[in-house]
Amino acid sequence: MSISFFYVWRVNVRTQTFTREPVPESWKKLGGRALLARILVDEVHPTCDPLGPDNKLIFAQGLLVGHMLSSCDRISIGAKSPVTGGAKEANAGGRTGLQLSHLGIKALIIEDQPDEDRLSLLHLGAEGVRFEPADELAALSVSACAPVLLERFGNKVAIAMIGPGGEMLMHAAGIQNLDKDGAPTRIAARGGMGSVMGSKGLKAIVIDGSGGERPPIVDADGFNQARQAYNTALMGHPQTAIYRDYGTIAVARMAQAFGALPTRNFSEGEFAGLETISAEQLRQNLTTRKGCDPSHACMAGCTIQSSNVYVTEDGETTVSPMEYETIGLMGSNLGIDDLDAIAHMNAVVNDLGLDTIEIGAALGVAAEAGLMEYGDGERALELVDEIRQGTTLGRVLGNGAAVTGKVFGVKRVPVVKGQAMSAYDPRALKGTGVTYATSPQGADHTCGLTIRAEIDHLDPNGQVDLSRGLQFRTAGFDSLGACAFAGFGFGADPAVIPALLNTRYGWTVNEGIVETLGRESVRLERQFNRMAGLTAADDRLPEWMTREQLSPTNAVFDVPAEEMDAIFNDLDAEQGQAQ
Amino acid sequence: MSISFFYVWRVNVRTQTFTREPVPESWKKLGGRALLARILVDEVHPTCDPLGPDNKLIFAQGLLVGHMLSSCDRISIGAKSPVTGGAKEANAGGRTGLQLSHLGIKALIIEDQPDEDRLSLLHLGAEGVRFEPADELAALSVSACAPVLLERFGNKVAIAMIGPGGEMLMHAAGIQNLDKDGAPTRIAARGGMGSVMGSKGLKAIVIDGSGGERPPIVDADGFNQARQAYNTALMGHPQTAIYRDYGTIAVARMAQAFGALPTRNFSEGEFAGLETISAEQLRQNLTTRKGCDPSHACMAGCTIQSSNVYVTEDGETTVSPMEYETIGLMGSNLGIDDLDAIAHMNAVVNDLGLDTIEIGAALGVAAEAGLMEYGDGERALELVDEIRQGTTLGRVLGNGAAVTGKVFGVKRVPVVKGQAMSAYDPRALKGTGVTYATSPQGADHTCGLTIRAEIDHLDPNGQVDLSRGLQFRTAGFDSLGACAFAGFGFGADPAVIPALLNTRYGWTVNEGIVETLGRESVRLERQFNRMAGLTAADDRLPEWMTREQLSPTNAVFDVPAEEMDAIFNDLDAEQGQAQ
Repeated sequence: MSISFFYVWRVNVRTQTFTREPVPESWKKLGGRALLARILVDEVHPTCDPLGPDNKLIFAQGLLVGHMLSSCDRISIGAKSPVTGGAKEANAGGRTGLQLSHLGIKALIIEDQPDEDRLSLLHLGAEGVRFEPADELAALSVSACAPVLLERFGNKVAIAMIGPGGEMLMHAAGIQNLDKDGAPTRIAARGGMGSVMGSKGLKAIVIDGSGGERPPIVDADGFNQARQAYNTALMGHPQTAIYRDYGTIAVARMAQAFGALPTRNFSEGEFAGLETISAEQLRQNLTTRKGCDPSHACMAGCTIQSSNVYVTEDGETTVSPMEYETIGLMGSNLGIDDLDAIAHMNAVVNDLGLDTIEIGAALGVAAEAGLMEYGDGERALELVDEIRQGTTLGRVLGNGAAVTGKVFGVKRVPVVKGQAMSAYDPRALKGTGVTYATSPQGADHTCGLTIRAEIDHLDPNGQVDLSRGLQFRTAGFDSLGACAFAGFGFGADPAVIPALLNTRYGWTVNEGIVETLGRESVRLERQFNRMAGLTAADDRLPEWMTREQLSPTNAVFDVPAEEMDAIFNDLDAEQGQAQ
Repeated sequence: MSISFFYVWRVNVRTQTFTREPVPESWKKLGGRALLARILVDEVHPTCDPLGPDNKLIFAQGLLVGHMLSSCDRISIGAKSPVTGGAKEANAGGRTGLQLSHLGIKALIIEDQPDEDRLSLLHLGAEGVRFEPADELAALSVSACAPVLLERFGNKVAIAMIGPGGEMLMHAAGIQNLDKDGAPTRIAARGGMGSVMGSKGLKAIVIDGSGGERPPIVDADGFNQARQAYNTALMGHPQTAIYRDYGTIAVARMAQAFGALPTRNFSEGEFAGLETISAEQLRQNLTTRKGCDPSHACMAGCTIQSSNVYVTEDGETTVSPMEYETIGLMGSNLGIDDLDAIAHMNAVVNDLGLDTIEIGAALGVAAEAGLMEYGDGERALELVDEIRQGTTLGRVLGNGAAVTGKVFGVKRVPVVKGQAMSAYDPRALKGTGVTYATSPQGADHTCGLTIRAEIDHLDPNGQVDLSRGLQFRTAGFDSLGACAFAGFGFGADPAVIPALLNTRYGWTVNEGIVETLGRESVRLERQFNRMAGLTAADDRLPEWMTREQLSPTNAVFDVPAEEMDAIFNDLDAEQGQAQ
């Protein structure tokens, strides 16, 4: 089978059959998140059971993926979400995007459901697709599973796999991807994509791009010039060095300064124990402990290297990466000020293939229900171990914060559309609150984080416009396969992204392309969500956040609902006309 | 305080204050379910947290309540439901309706939420309203609580109370009312009204109507004539005697004959063990065991006496009533063919103040998840005991079938809008399936049961019209305060209901009044649900019921979605015009 070049690969897990199809015209100029949204609208029955046979698990290629352009080889994975009940895109770095591109896979669409319980492995290569039984991999953690598969298929392959969490159909399960060094640490975490993969009876997807080819470039010289401009800007940006040295934890002090650091199940916005879980402390541990790596790249060719590899003091527990989101949700949110305890929890949850944000939030709700004392890292680890064992309590927690709150009758549950908020309290960061509320994806900082905007984060005015612009921009980046931090490079010259796209594809797009892709993503996701039964009533923060004041700012969330409801009026009108 | 006569009593549980207000003009000609729906639309913020301060718990009087008219003193209790997220009305017999009517209470509206955790008792009497601390009643089962309160307040009072389930905010919690003999056995079971009461910090509402008065009747002679005609028809109807002798279990054999008896978590429609849980077996036990009562009236003045009092062979466990729904859900649905085991489970679940339908369905899902073997009554009792203890597993089960299915990753979950189906499999009784799907109340046989209709229950044609008519009729009855079985009397002469209403109130309504009230109920509930974010996507049976064939008929649910979506088009159009 010759590659040349992009096709849609369609796999049926019940019949174990495969077809390679031309890319429909209307999909060609879309990628990543926008392409996913298009496929969901075109192909997935919006009221289907997310864990039933009518849902589809989709891997969609970003438009810039395939060339080891720094921070631009991310893979978008999506489906109807069992968490939100709506459209979902979760993306991750690592090898998956790059190797899928070498096989000429524009989109991988996984359909149907096996008739009986069985666990399989899907192998994609230049020769096509094959299934293998994977019963011997059942219940393996991702770090136990990866070496077995690398041994069997060669250590250059990419793997997207689920852990025990996905096999147990836990709604907090993500899909773990190998990083450039073969470690299963790059998770498409949010929205339960791992449970969708589990419901399809797939333990792992092995992608062997070795027999493939690099995707063609229409104007290679032009592309390289644009790449060069991008790299120079990226390397010269002051944030690049900060993220290389400190990683995402750099933002913790900022969140604390705004009173937006989730503390003790979002009951406070400031954590007394910040110093011992801060960027500086993390860097100190990373630079003094043997085996740590403070500046680790998750994808080949990445010059930012915001990731890290952490080893706890016992020298045994290793986790990669330690991200701000995890430290916020599993640290301050649980009242825990011990990086080693957080790292340990992080490692176990990663290994189960679960979303650390969702699990951290669920543990916060569990603490509120009396299942642990805030600050008790050992008890938190015990609770994480319940998840690993699949006990009833573990299954509750593994299904996330909303389910945990319902089971234990807890009122203070930080979710939107059933999905946990990340480590920014929206009362003190109101633009991010608007994103949480109105993003078609549920509460998710990656859909439009406003913390770096020059605005009074406590003032409800102007937050809707701010969030809207960022939602389009981030959805645009997610459609390119670009990491949020790629913006450090792209920001310098708005002509670079169109130059890359035009030289690669022979297009003539202009500087508006990022917003165009972002708008299209959000428009299509809203269309899917509406057909799935989501309405403006779902575009709300939890009621208690509009009443309960957050210390130290004593803010409540007070962006008017009517203003939030109008945020995408123009998109909905376009949608109306298109029908 | 003189009564004369109907007012709205409004109570705030945070400030512990009370006002008595004139009945708004637009509420006056409504009662029960229709009045509840009107109040929800007029007063309750549709997107509020059902267990938060903005929800209201409402007791609404049926239009015929207050005169010991046989089977017509039921009380309607409602709120925004934590189960369905929409409008909810659950009604029950017993003393509550009658005594509220003697105090001139057209509607009791309970608002807000205490600032801290505290348990109170609300006392309503001719002198007005008072609160009393109720901490000593915490965690008491309803059968332990009732005698304490009857001792304190006299054994004539009516009581509406919650059990430990409601205190734990379990979504399957109902509100238990005393029957005419003072036993707490008349539960407004469905939709989690007990958890709403628990969220308001109320253990019990004691209603002392002794200082009150009977509601006035404009034309007493005319009313008595109409009553007489009704009673004669009721006594003469053949079903009255059947229900007196057998109770609701009389329908079990019919459900089996249609292949619609839920068996082993709705995986089959026919139960081999029917004989030992049949009407005949139940009657034999009831007539031969000491302490049993086969024909018990739940309300004063009821001539049908469909209820019963059951004593197990050990002579210790007593339950009242044993209903078909419970026997279906806790018997055949769990593969259990032992009436004594079912009675025992029934007693414990009643005593926790929980909905036996929802818990039976949750246990079925738990069996599918491997937590019990079908047919193992002892294990089922252990699981019920987990609920009593409030263990994590118990809390999962106590939140009902949908939550249980989510936690354990079970696909075959028999719910609509998050609420469990009752003991009629909709694949073999398609009209009832239409009711389950399209009722604003979620899956609920009392909203329009089609089993007695002369139709081919397997044919998808005609079921939407059949369901629609019955939905209006039952909602009309629920607005009168009339039991479904009152229809045996009212059915004989359509002039009787308007005669009763016209003589009582001085109105001039005609025979269309039942349908008018029913339409108004459904129209307002749909309006509330729409504002709460429910859409046509929620008006669906679970997807698996459209694929998985039900033995022995091999039926799937195949009433077209488009036909169901159009079922209330005329109401929605009226609604559009009214705005």
